Amino acid sequence: MLFTSFMGENNEYRYLPEIDFPADLRKLKVEELPAVCDELRRDIIEELAMNPGHLASSLGVVELTVALHYVFNTPYDRIVWDVGHQAYGHKILTGRRDLFCTNRRLNGLKPFPHPDESEYDTFCCGHASNSISAGLGMAVAAKLKGENRKVVAVIGDGAMSGGLAFEGINNAASTPNDMLIVLNDNNMSIDRSVGGMRKYLLQLTTNTTYNNIRYKVSQKLFGWGILNEKRRRGLIRFNNSVKSVLARQKNIFEGMDIRYFGPAEGNDVLELVRVLQVIKEMKGPKLLYIHTTKGYGYAPAEEDATIWHAPGKFDPDTGERITTQDDKPHPPKFQDVFGKTLLELAQKNEKIVGVTPAMPTGCSMNIMMNAMPKRVFDVGIAEGHAVTFSGGLAKDGMMPFCNIYSSFMQRAYDNIIHDAATMRLNMVLCLDRAGLVGEDGSTHHGAFDMAFLRPIPNLTIASPYDEPELRRLMYTAQLPDKGVFVIRYPRGRGNTIDWQCELEEIPVGKGRKLKDGENVAVLSIGPIGVEAEKAISIAELKALNENASGAMYYAHYDMRFLKPIDEDILHEVGKKFKKVVTVEDGVISGGLGSAVLEFFADHHYEMEVTRIGIPNRFVMHGTVAELRKQCGMDAEGIANVLVKLS
Amino acid sequence: MLFTSFMGENNEYRYLPEIDFPADLRKLKVEELPAVCDELRRDIIEELAMNPGHLASSLGVVELTVALHYVFNTPYDRIVWDVGHQAYGHKILTGRRDLFCTNRRLNGLKPFPHPDESEYDTFCCGHASNSISAGLGMAVAAKLKGENRKVVAVIGDGAMSGGLAFEGINNAASTPNDMLIVLNDNNMSIDRSVGGMRKYLLQLTTNTTYNNIRYKVSQKLFGWGILNEKRRRGLIRFNNSVKSVLARQKNIFEGMDIRYFGPAEGNDVLELVRVLQVIKEMKGPKLLYIHTTKGYGYAPAEEDATIWHAPGKFDPDTGERITTQDDKPHPPKFQDVFGKTLLELAQKNEKIVGVTPAMPTGCSMNIMMNAMPKRVFDVGIAEGHAVTFSGGLAKDGMMPFCNIYSSFMQRAYDNIIHDAATMRLNMVLCLDRAGLVGEDGSTHHGAFDMAFLRPIPNLTIASPYDEPELRRLMYTAQLPDKGVFVIRYPRGRGNTIDWQCELEEIPVGKGRKLKDGENVAVLSIGPIGVEAEKAISIAELKALNENASGAMYYAHYDMRFLKPIDEDILHEVGKKFKKVVTVEDGVISGGLGSAVLEFFADHHYEMEVTRIGIPNRFVMHGTVAELRKQCGMDAEGIANVLVKLS
Repeated sequence: MLFTSFMGENNEYRYLPEIDFPADLRKLKVEELPAVCDELRRDIIEELAMNPGHLASSLGVVELTVALHYVFNTPYDRIVWDVGHQAYGHKILTGRRDLFCTNRRLNGLKPFPHPDESEYDTFCCGHASNSISAGLGMAVAAKLKGENRKVVAVIGDGAMSGGLAFEGINNAASTPNDMLIVLNDNNMSIDRSVGGMRKYLLQLTTNTTYNNIRYKVSQKLFGWGILNEKRRRGLIRFNNSVKSVLARQKNIFEGMDIRYFGPAEGNDVLELVRVLQVIKEMKGPKLLYIHTTKGYGYAPAEEDATIWHAPGKFDPDTGERITTQDDKPHPPKFQDVFGKTLLELAQKNEKIVGVTPAMPTGCSMNIMMNAMPKRVFDVGIAEGHAVTFSGGLAKDGMMPFCNIYSSFMQRAYDNIIHDAATMRLNMVLCLDRAGLVGEDGSTHHGAFDMAFLRPIPNLTIASPYDEPELRRLMYTAQLPDKGVFVIRYPRGRGNTIDWQCELEEIPVGKGRKLKDGENVAVLSIGPIGVEAEKAISIAELKALNENASGAMYYAHYDMRFLKPIDEDILHEVGKKFKKVVTVEDGVISGGLGSAVLEFFADHHYEMEVTRIGIPNRFVMHGTVAELRKQCGMDAEGIANVLVKLS
Repeated sequence: MLFTSFMGENNEYRYLPEIDFPADLRKLKVEELPAVCDELRRDIIEELAMNPGHLASSLGVVELTVALHYVFNTPYDRIVWDVGHQAYGHKILTGRRDLFCTNRRLNGLKPFPHPDESEYDTFCCGHASNSISAGLGMAVAAKLKGENRKVVAVIGDGAMSGGLAFEGINNAASTPNDMLIVLNDNNMSIDRSVGGMRKYLLQLTTNTTYNNIRYKVSQKLFGWGILNEKRRRGLIRFNNSVKSVLARQKNIFEGMDIRYFGPAEGNDVLELVRVLQVIKEMKGPKLLYIHTTKGYGYAPAEEDATIWHAPGKFDPDTGERITTQDDKPHPPKFQDVFGKTLLELAQKNEKIVGVTPAMPTGCSMNIMMNAMPKRVFDVGIAEGHAVTFSGGLAKDGMMPFCNIYSSFMQRAYDNIIHDAATMRLNMVLCLDRAGLVGEDGSTHHGAFDMAFLRPIPNLTIASPYDEPELRRLMYTAQLPDKGVFVIRYPRGRGNTIDWQCELEEIPVGKGRKLKDGENVAVLSIGPIGVEAEKAISIAELKALNENASGAMYYAHYDMRFLKPIDEDILHEVGKKFKKVVTVEDGVISGGLGSAVLEFFADHHYEMEVTRIGIPNRFVMHGTVAELRKQCGMDAEGIANVLVKLS
């Protein structure tokens, strides 16, 4: 049996069907909570077996989720999750059990908690490390309004490496508030957690003398009935004095005047409830440090939490992951082309180093990491630092490839400007997950990068049409004196099975003509160009049926570079065409389409330009194909535009 | 005598003229260094008395600057300054004494160290908190290349509150490197330093038992001649054991495996040299905590470091600040209109709170802070947190006005998207110092904000034409349900002496016609519109001289809102005109001009659009007037464009 702690023998849900909202949960006796946890865990496993999502982190916090909603008066009290992967249990307990099968699907539940979906979702939590800052805002608002509202920010050890979390704690310490921070240590963000803070936390934990005594004392007191409601405060004071006597140590949190409690066993719901009830009413900022096991209660996930972070479909009983088998060769994922090419380049150019903010597996930099561990740096969830650190490496002659998901690169915007572009350093910024990413939804689409990077001086910004182009761009970027070289490419697979082309230089700022045509010029950048190519075929087929000259109606250019943009192509197009369509997998305001408009305006070409791209709204979740269709960016949508122009 | 420690009686410089580069400094005996410090201090004071700049911070680190260049083999060894205000002494010692009178002036020395200017300037340091990350990159590069190069990052206690600094320390602890971090505590960033880390550092300092004994012991050992080169390492080990015995305390840095030394007296050059020589050769990351006094050695600056942060011209002998006196009333600074109006609004709307990242004086939020201390939050140098914290406040019903300089808002980009826009929270982001800022130069121009904010969904982005418009926009922004409302305005004074207009609502997304015209439409946003207005007068005067219809040649629209853009105006312009000029105090790619181009393209207007704005390169320093002229954004430059279109 893979489920390590199941309650009933007949697999019947006894509690969960009765819990529509946390108020129902709070009607139960505390002794019943372990059974609720088991059911909740089973429900998550069974749902995710069919409808893939983030498993391991949600399993790890089942007990915490139940304990928080049991002890705190949600939604009046605020629970602020940090990184919403883990919040599946929270969703199920807050009125969304029936809808949970739609999680991450088009028009279904959102992938991450969001206030638009439920009043129990207090804040947007797609990106890590924001819970303390947001929770502090809520806690201060409560104080200013004179409300006795409790605010709990739940942050993982991985997210604690983010600078925003530190800024939040630093400010929480000096602003009057009663917030509780639950620091959930599962030694894991997506890959393993790294950094000095991690070491420090570990030391706090292993200060066993104090902690053992403290917890034994408090448990005894509870057990003997010596402790009651009124005496709780006294206990805390007692605990704190025990602590100072035994350990003579003030940790960083205490040094900041944040009261520190823990570690508590985070997969023991009864212990959590007990501790939370004790510290709930205490004034001032406080931090509870708990330990949980990612994937807790499901053996396969406990064994390999990285794989089971988001395992895809699986058989809940056997723990076997279900992969659709076919014998056809598939084109590789862009990330794997990146990972393999990086190693290949690094073997030839000893200046190359890799930098990733906690995503070695996600961006496939683990390939180089395994082969050359000393030349790859996982800096933790710290995108700003990743770029500035790369800047320092570049300044002293190394050639860093810093890979950050496009939507997370938003966190390193100033670093790109200030710590890279102003100095024209030779370094490569690879933006994986650029464009629409699918099921991870609105916070994860790499929609803005082209628009926010284009105004920055001294940058080269490129996007490959396909896998071989990605290789060539990577090769080009690491040649001498190329400056800050940005390469953006999407999530998922490309279209080229034979991707292992020769490595050769692409002239910077040069695009290419993919197809001649007479009437309309289609200018695309990146792999969305493949959709444009299909669209042209569709439109020309339609035109062929109507008049004979269809096959030469549309010209197609792969711009390759957003910046510097290929002025030769644009002059060619400006002279020959009156109608232009731009196609990009990025927001419609400020990207390729705008660059083309600016060029034509500056050079006095009178053109009818139609821009296709991500519209100016937050696009929600669904498959990439569904979302492209929704945005009119699939072959059919583009073809419709093309046909109208004919 | 205001100079507290001058050496010679006849005010002659004895050492400084002989020190062209640090190598010359290193030829001196250590006993001569106090005299060098005095001369350097005097030189800075005398230079800044005539040519204004950042005084207090540079005075505070005179001894540190001399000690670092004396002990370390610069430029082979790397000193990475954090916030280059303080680096005037560094400039004078590194070959730029003769040029120092050009500091911050057009074509003169840069306001902040920059590698383009000197090989002693290791990294761009205009924005705070990046030194540890950049220095770590250099230290790792040295390790990878097998070079015995030393890297020293010098960071102030203010900059330590930035998340980037924490990310850097966190990573420094887990990456093999030999970097030295000098943490310079002067209890001051620009205003006073805040936050929990500050408290924590203070505790480390006041742990006197340990520190007293440690330093007394080491000084005795040195004094008695017991300690020599070989024994230094031993001393360190000894110190550390004394420490652990006496204090039984591991501080956060030690807990992270960063060796911790200090506090040392940072205005005692001999002590600094001694300590630096001891720890210089030690392997592994280490941190030296020093205390300095901002403004040290110059009584007026020591007394009020906030005023003397950048005092303007002054008489060095009397300490009297020289203000150009005239009896004319002046228009107010935009920041003061902001500060006074904020208080006025807050008195009526109790939901209003103020949030500033360490800039209460700089943005004049101190006006509200003094009147309502509980409703203003100085969160430290932590722009990301400032926005997310505001998001939390807004989420629970407060109406935050978060004021951040435009170029620093680059650090909160993801926070604006993820922690504000996705939830359409009702909050106001005020971007002071938007557009060209003048002498602070390339890192401080608020060039990019319109371009990087425009693609974000759910934002309202406005810029007032003048002071009364700023008041009206602020009033409008705090009315119910306005969502995330951005108001950008420039550094310095406006043009309106009678600025205290009635507070009234401006319809969101509505611009206004300032002047009718027949042939060319000028569309401007923000106070740069005043230049456009003058330009129209110049151009029409010229046209009048040539033909009689000049006065109706140019129409002028103040767009007010970049987003949502006023489509009524654009349709009116599209129908009536063939020629349009856009004028904005922001980068030319992606801002107003691009928005106008996109609108005309989407609505099939054939227009000749000329865009005027900050060009796509890093604009350097000079007065705002000089830089506007350079960029063709002053009245004359705009008029030249207008005349060509006639």
